[in-house]
Amino acid sequence: MAAKPVSVLITGANRGLGLEMVRQMLAGPFPLGKLFACCRDPDGPRAEALRTLAKKHPNIISIICLDAADLCSIKQCAKQVGSLVGTGGLNLLINNAGFLAKGILQETNAEDMQKSFNTNVMGPMNMIKEFLPHLRTAAKASTMQGMSSCKSAVVTISSQMGSMESVKWSYSFFPAVSYRISKAGVNILTLCAAEELKKDEILFSLLHPGWVRTDMGGEEGDIDAPESVQGMLGVMASLTEKQNGAFLNYKGETIPW
Amino acid sequence: MAAKPVSVLITGANRGLGLEMVRQMLAGPFPLGKLFACCRDPDGPRAEALRTLAKKHPNIISIICLDAADLCSIKQCAKQVGSLVGTGGLNLLINNAGFLAKGILQETNAEDMQKSFNTNVMGPMNMIKEFLPHLRTAAKASTMQGMSSCKSAVVTISSQMGSMESVKWSYSFFPAVSYRISKAGVNILTLCAAEELKKDEILFSLLHPGWVRTDMGGEEGDIDAPESVQGMLGVMASLTEKQNGAFLNYKGETIPW
Repeated sequence: MAAKPVSVLITGANRGLGLEMVRQMLAGPFPLGKLFACCRDPDGPRAEALRTLAKKHPNIISIICLDAADLCSIKQCAKQVGSLVGTGGLNLLINNAGFLAKGILQETNAEDMQKSFNTNVMGPMNMIKEFLPHLRTAAKASTMQGMSSCKSAVVTISSQMGSMESVKWSYSFFPAVSYRISKAGVNILTLCAAEELKKDEILFSLLHPGWVRTDMGGEEGDIDAPESVQGMLGVMASLTEKQNGAFLNYKGETIPW
Repeated sequence: MAAKPVSVLITGANRGLGLEMVRQMLAGPFPLGKLFACCRDPDGPRAEALRTLAKKHPNIISIICLDAADLCSIKQCAKQVGSLVGTGGLNLLINNAGFLAKGILQETNAEDMQKSFNTNVMGPMNMIKEFLPHLRTAAKASTMQGMSSCKSAVVTISSQMGSMESVKWSYSFFPAVSYRISKAGVNILTLCAAEELKKDEILFSLLHPGWVRTDMGGEEGDIDAPESVQGMLGVMASLTEKQNGAFLNYKGETIPW
């Protein structure tokens, strides 16, 4: 019996890690049914590579307009995706969209703080809340035991920079106060979601992509996007209820809080 | 030689733990010079107990108007306190004001999230930034070696509920998603401040007051405010550079992140 096709949604899918996830997912590790590639401006110049990819795979990729920092946009996206997935629900929601400001505390202003909070904390929270019906539908529609990314899961791309333990060794070269605060916030949010929704058999995990050479990570990163994404997709495919509430890097290693 | 008098500022000083701190500080453990008791409405009915206390100790207590969620109010307060402390600076800033919403994730709305973020994260951040000149002045004016609450320190009242480790055992009876997110946020903010400002010899620590029977903690708490505050003041008095960036409960025990 062939494995049941999996429906996946990725935010911030037009560039960086998000775009690379779309690319690699076409080749595995999930038996892909529908892939909802979300970005803020699907018709703009920054989504050209995504549009080209979508044209090659019209039966799989749907590009959907989504501003993850805007509740109204999330609600519209959830409605649209709901009508497309129907009774199968949405199996895997990947909160990938993110915002980074790099300043030290003394340089961090209210705007950086608010933008980080809106995109990196409120965004994932509202995505979880608004897509919950579709995630529940997927969990109920599945005949699989336990939890998995193929059944019903939310994977949020966090960062080791949101780890309390990391501040001591990394602050001098990567202060990013507003970013760290937002990532610590989304980490505990994810733990809360994992507790609250385990009865619904929806899995919640946090992934650290590594320090990646992307627009966000800059040129000095340790690895390229393909290596990071290959690792993360492997980790996603291996998730079970044992990793509900886990914080793992792209190699599958646990990151201390 | 008598110990040099210490200047202290407490936010949210009109009730609960803040008011109890004002009460107990009059009897120790610091040789108290000036005590700035800050609250949003110094003339309102909710500050009556604080006004009575201030009348009895007019040379020590100054009640100052402060809304810790409002940058403009913080700037005004910092200016006023600066003119009162002069060349001695401010030795100890206690970020005590806080906001609590108790809901689960599915009930948490944007308003709870924003209010928790403004009061519990932006508040302490702006207090640190705006009072930094006075804290630096105090550190420079001191002849003491190392770090201490008598020299120059910021103590932020956080909560064990902001600990990632706590979610698993406490979520079912105390979800408070927006509160947890804000406390995890202020925890990592404090670690960042501790790293960034250690060269200035300003100490940063986080305290968990216990589950206290106050307006915020409710009637089911484990301990009363006097016990919590007695413990916390003892911990504050014992802080050294070894506790820079520490997260301790009112008994002085380290709380896991």
